[in-house]
Amino acid sequence: MTTPEYPTALGASSRESITLLGTDLARDVMGTVGFGELAFWLATQRRPTPGETRVFEAVLAALADHGFTPTAIVTRLTYLSAPDSVQGALAAGLLGGGSRFLGVTEDSGRFLDDVLTGVDGELPTDDAGWDALALETVTAQRAARRFVPGLGHHVHKDGDPRTPRLFEIATEEGLFGPHLSLFAAIGRVHPQVLGKTLPLNGAGVCGAALADLGLPLELLRGFALLARTAGLIGQLAEELRHPVANDVFLSVDLNNRSVAPDPYVPDLRASDLEGDSHG
Amino acid sequence: MTTPEYPTALGASSRESITLLGTDLARDVMGTVGFGELAFWLATQRRPTPGETRVFEAVLAALADHGFTPTAIVTRLTYLSAPDSVQGALAAGLLGGGSRFLGVTEDSGRFLDDVLTGVDGELPTDDAGWDALALETVTAQRAARRFVPGLGHHVHKDGDPRTPRLFEIATEEGLFGPHLSLFAAIGRVHPQVLGKTLPLNGAGVCGAALADLGLPLELLRGFALLARTAGLIGQLAEELRHPVANDVFLSVDLNNRSVAPDPYVPDLRASDLEGDSHG
Amino acid sequence: MTTPEYPTALGASSRESITLLGTDLARDVMGTVGFGELAFWLATQRRPTPGETRVFEAVLAALADHGFTPTAIVTRLTYLSAPDSVQGALAAGLLGGGSRFLGVTEDSGRFLDDVLTGVDGELPTDDAGWDALALETVTAQRAARRFVPGLGHHVHKDGDPRTPRLFEIATEEGLFGPHLSLFAAIGRVHPQVLGKTLPLNGAGVCGAALADLGLPLELLRGFALLARTAGLIGQLAEELRHPVANDVFLSVDLNNRSVAPDPYVPDLRASDLEGDSHG
Amino acid sequence: MTTPEYPTALGASSRESITLLGTDLARDVMGTVGFGELAFWLATQRRPTPGETRVFEAVLAALADHGFTPTAIVTRLTYLSAPDSVQGALAAGLLGGGSRFLGVTEDSGRFLDDVLTGVDGELPTDDAGWDALALETVTAQRAARRFVPGLGHHVHKDGDPRTPRLFEIATEEGLFGPHLSLFAAIGRVHPQVLGKTLPLNGAGVCGAALADLGLPLELLRGFALLARTAGLIGQLAEELRHPVANDVFLSVDLNNRSVAPDPYVPDLRASDLEGDSHG
Repeated sequence: MTTPEYPTALGASSRESITLLGTDLARDVMGTVGFGELAFWLATQRRPTPGETRVFEAVLAALADHGFTPTAIVTRLTYLSAPDSVQGALAAGLLGGGSRFLGVTEDSGRFLDDVLTGVDGELPTDDAGWDALALETVTAQRAARRFVPGLGHHVHKDGDPRTPRLFEIATEEGLFGPHLSLFAAIGRVHPQVLGKTLPLNGAGVCGAALADLGLPLELLRGFALLARTAGLIGQLAEELRHPVANDVFLSVDLNNRSVAPDPYVPDLRASDLEGDSHG
Repeated sequence: MTTPEYPTALGASSRESITLLGTDLARDVMGTVGFGELAFWLATQRRPTPGETRVFEAVLAALADHGFTPTAIVTRLTYLSAPDSVQGALAAGLLGGGSRFLGVTEDSGRFLDDVLTGVDGELPTDDAGWDALALETVTAQRAARRFVPGLGHHVHKDGDPRTPRLFEIATEEGLFGPHLSLFAAIGRVHPQVLGKTLPLNGAGVCGAALADLGLPLELLRGFALLARTAGLIGQLAEELRHPVANDVFLSVDLNNRSVAPDPYVPDLRASDLEGDSHG
Repeated sequence: MTTPEYPTALGASSRESITLLGTDLARDVMGTVGFGELAFWLATQRRPTPGETRVFEAVLAALADHGFTPTAIVTRLTYLSAPDSVQGALAAGLLGGGSRFLGVTEDSGRFLDDVLTGVDGELPTDDAGWDALALETVTAQRAARRFVPGLGHHVHKDGDPRTPRLFEIATEEGLFGPHLSLFAAIGRVHPQVLGKTLPLNGAGVCGAALADLGLPLELLRGFALLARTAGLIGQLAEELRHPVANDVFLSVDLNNRSVAPDPYVPDLRASDLEGDSHG
Repeated sequence: MTTPEYPTALGASSRESITLLGTDLARDVMGTVGFGELAFWLATQRRPTPGETRVFEAVLAALADHGFTPTAIVTRLTYLSAPDSVQGALAAGLLGGGSRFLGVTEDSGRFLDDVLTGVDGELPTDDAGWDALALETVTAQRAARRFVPGLGHHVHKDGDPRTPRLFEIATEEGLFGPHLSLFAAIGRVHPQVLGKTLPLNGAGVCGAALADLGLPLELLRGFALLARTAGLIGQLAEELRHPVANDVFLSVDLNNRSVAPDPYVPDLRASDLEGDSHG
């Protein structure tokens, strides 16, 4: 077997120079390209405009830290238990970035994009058009008994402050595209269908904004994780100086209640047993 | 047991608002604070100056991606094997951010800081003073048969292009502090002690620059990991469109050579056995 | 808020004793209960019979190690990069235990269980009955253009040796239940539907056997991961004495080919551009 | 560059057969080799005796689960947050297997082995000889103001029940070797040096027993992690049916107390500032 070659446009180095995305790292990236801009560039292999960078960084700020989330608690507890490995504490926290707590961003972006790519013909060009598409979308979700990703929030019941702010920033930068347009329209029309008014949440609007930036949908969760990495470093930094992890651990351990084992019976056997009892 | 309270200055939210570090997230962070600036702020709970942000982001750029490093290969292989979990692929890559490949940044920052905090009296104020301290430092390391972290590079044997560039940026921003000063002096004086000229490597200068920014030494590795998260998202994005992971996997799997088991004998027993054979 | 209590039947300790699952750990578990038996007991909170333990351990043996899989390579590369963290190297390897390489066990168990719980009335009691159910099942999958999990193998095209052996062990122990019966029947009838004979693979038969043992379907992947943990420790042990990771790394790094960036255009925009070109 | 070959004695497969450690997997491992035995075999490439397997499995039982440890809490919280990834929940829990909570096993084994390999000449052959070596060892540790790994327990202050039990099992199997002998002697003599009686803890005795089994010291932590993997699957299984993770999360989140940011000042600057204030 011949050894394959492995193509990449990312980092490359020779004895004299280092390039990143075909650009001289030392001369043309360091000192010139901000970190949000660089992350965008790495993910898309195209350099974003200043407006795109501003919207992207607004999204990262919106997702960086939400206080004592499970991911934050996990990072602190892992550091308590294994202080020899900062990488382990951060990785453990990121592993909570799945479907429930960080997944809304991805789900929302994908959902909106599915609707948009399913439109036969031109996309709407005014609010009335977007409202019609949104109404059709929400009605179809309801008929299928499915939630609309990005709609609803357990704390910010009267509105998530991140949502209007991100609308505003995207508008200022001329980046209020079809995903944000559809998302905003869903916010306007859903009470007609659902009979109640729910807030458009921050994770959802971030998914819409990232999709409008033309970022790969498969990686929307990745951007939430990038933002969260900065947040988790903040959590670790605070834990180092004002620790709470040991108190969290003890509050669980000291409040454990020993109970008798509860032998597991799978559904299939349970129904057998039930069937037997009817016999 | 009374439930403890858990203090935090990071994210907090009420029904109407969200704050981060005591600042209104939507109004005063989103759209205003860049991502590098935010990461610095989260880690130190103080907002960096524009100059500090520029040096910090230059460091993040220097560390973001170095092509097909073990961490990059690991992220790609993990995604190949478990495409259902972007968080798992990123976390797996970060777990390689340990002592050997990403640790130089931390080791270098800590080493320089140890020397500086060990100085009795005032720190040097001119190159001659720094050279004297550096000479003493390198000599002591050599006597103890220890390496100087940050010195040497297996590819950039004539100089790592990131090093002079970061010196330059730090100088422009008035942030060429004691860690960078000592590091630069080590670069000038070490040939006298070691009898050969080694380059000051990029990971080392990054550690020095982060320490001069006043960032917590315990978290220097964390900043390397933050930078690398952006790089790994770039690796994943490229893998999605131009995959190489399956070729890497096959190049190993198809070139495996089955050998006989080699039973393990611990040193203690091995020396016993040796002793026996002499009997 | 009152502090909640946290019930558990797992480990508990007082000043004098330690219990696990309501059993005295030192007196009645250590030295008496094998590790496979203990893992089963922990997962179900009921102690398995010797026959159940034998089938369970046969499954774990079947899944423990398959040579240079992506998970094995990842563990070795992570150890190369971060030798300070054995836990990181193992965790990184396990993160590859997702849908593609280790997921077949779970998919197969769930698929068979779905079919069985969907049967209206009694389950079959003889081969003819199982064949009829299997025929219906394979036909329905084919009509829906879906694969049958556990069918097919890229290497063992004439039959995976683990499959008849696990059938045999389960039969010996009186544990050839409905999942294995349906799986075996799929092996007999699928050529009628698919027009070709595929092997029943080892991962699939393991899923069927675990489901017949009454283990929770949600955790079938967890048992594959437990088996793999032992395998990854074996990989690490071999890497310590006969390292290959650096060669793997270099074979990729030295065969990288630098290519020009390939800017990403999302499908939605791509179709717009295409639409434009038709205009 | 020629493609390297990658030797391995672990899993290998051809079209017809699968071998593991040179043994036919289906015929001679499945149904014959228990899981603890297999894990030992994989780690050492030699098949353990029944006595070795019994001691090894007793150690794994001793380390499998200790109730609501940080690792258990982390696995449950990660599953709460990302229920789509069982591998992520297990990996996150294992990442807590570091120096503080799971590291004693490794530290103890290594410490004892260092003492033994440092002995000039023959090892002791009776209790008096071991006591003399132990006295010297504890005295030296005390003089260096270092702890003796494995000595002391925050709950089992009058004795950890696992310790005498493991001594007993190892004695029964003729595997009470030099590491256990030295560890037991430390238990006898340390009050003379320290002026108080501390228990020999379970993690420590496990390290001694694993070292006496001739397992690689670099991987002692790995065996603790293998044991813990079974425990974490038990935690996940219980969480699925009797969840506590959301209560743990809420008990932290609802008891958060928002405090003002506390800007970080590194020691070096703090001493500068202090110096200034003296000026």
